[in-house]
Amino acid sequence: MTKIARPDYPIQALLTRRWSPYGFADRDIAIDDLRALFEAARWAPSSYNEQPWRFIIARRSDRQAFQRLLNCLWDANQAWARHAPVLALGIVKRELTQTGAANAAAEHDLGLAVANLSLEATARGLSVHQMIGIDPDRVRNSFAVPEDYKPLTALALGYAGEPPELALEVLQRDRSARSRKPLAEIVFAGAWEQPAELAAD
Amino acid sequence: MTKIARPDYPIQALLTRRWSPYGFADRDIAIDDLRALFEAARWAPSSYNEQPWRFIIARRSDRQAFQRLLNCLWDANQAWARHAPVLALGIVKRELTQTGAANAAAEHDLGLAVANLSLEATARGLSVHQMIGIDPDRVRNSFAVPEDYKPLTALALGYAGEPPELALEVLQRDRSARSRKPLAEIVFAGAWEQPAELAAD
Repeated sequence: MTKIARPDYPIQALLTRRWSPYGFADRDIAIDDLRALFEAARWAPSSYNEQPWRFIIARRSDRQAFQRLLNCLWDANQAWARHAPVLALGIVKRELTQTGAANAAAEHDLGLAVANLSLEATARGLSVHQMIGIDPDRVRNSFAVPEDYKPLTALALGYAGEPPELALEVLQRDRSARSRKPLAEIVFAGAWEQPAELAAD
Repeated sequence: MTKIARPDYPIQALLTRRWSPYGFADRDIAIDDLRALFEAARWAPSSYNEQPWRFIIARRSDRQAFQRLLNCLWDANQAWARHAPVLALGIVKRELTQTGAANAAAEHDLGLAVANLSLEATARGLSVHQMIGIDPDRVRNSFAVPEDYKPLTALALGYAGEPPELALEVLQRDRSARSRKPLAEIVFAGAWEQPAELAAD
């Protein structure tokens, strides 16, 4: 199951095939694939090469660990994410290791890492659905995350599918069309909201 | 010129070829390539599909516009970024359009978009070097960025190379080996700093 983007200008097929499903098939992720996903995350760039990203993962095959991680998500996310074979938390180190100064790029750089992970997943027929809807305090308490780290996101990982237990309302989100703002609304030149030449034609 | 990552486990070649050079060749980016880069950014996922990313770009061929953008970077970044044929600023919308609530994922999601952009660049033989070292107030004043948007990053875009004017100290950074923390230091399971199975072997 895929839902391919329809870009206005040609881009790499891998990028058009990346998609965040709500429905996951009842199929586990092989350990080699899972390892490759985090290996891909590892090679993202980061400010001062700080690599502020940390992940806590749980496989559904380990029911207790999975439930503990699932409990850190908002209820609305638990409803669909519980079908994914693997869940992960995305956590950032707040400060730069070398200087102790605040790392203004920390959250941004987690995004860079997870984008790498998502594209490695896409290349392997897997999908990733990220969530900002987590309970950071519960993450901190459940997994003894130190104060200088900030839990930010969760990731559901697996093969896109339609689990029979999934609410129709949620399944319909997977069936709706994908949409994005036009380039002219996001790329400017010269001044704010003045579309760049590349976006204006 | 490339500097390929040496992953511990096999990942997509595109990801290993992505690299952030300090040295850029004196060669412009074709408009079709530049457009594809931002088109790739456009198709990144984002929390509530908010697409909080905005970009302001300037081409070196337009000397005045380029200088205005270059002036928003820290001096140490200007020293090498001035050779890139294209510069861009990465800006995020702080709040969710639908509710007005703070968007906790805004900076993270800019990272997702720029990772897409960087991989589209890599596929086209181009390179991207991101910077957190910008003067946000100068960006705001120079380009009339509204208060509800936050300037966060800059990007230098172009073909990797060795401009003769570049300081040897900077060039040497491009010649040094690439390094990353091992997987066992970034992927945990069960508890903090307890390496996940996939990272432990």
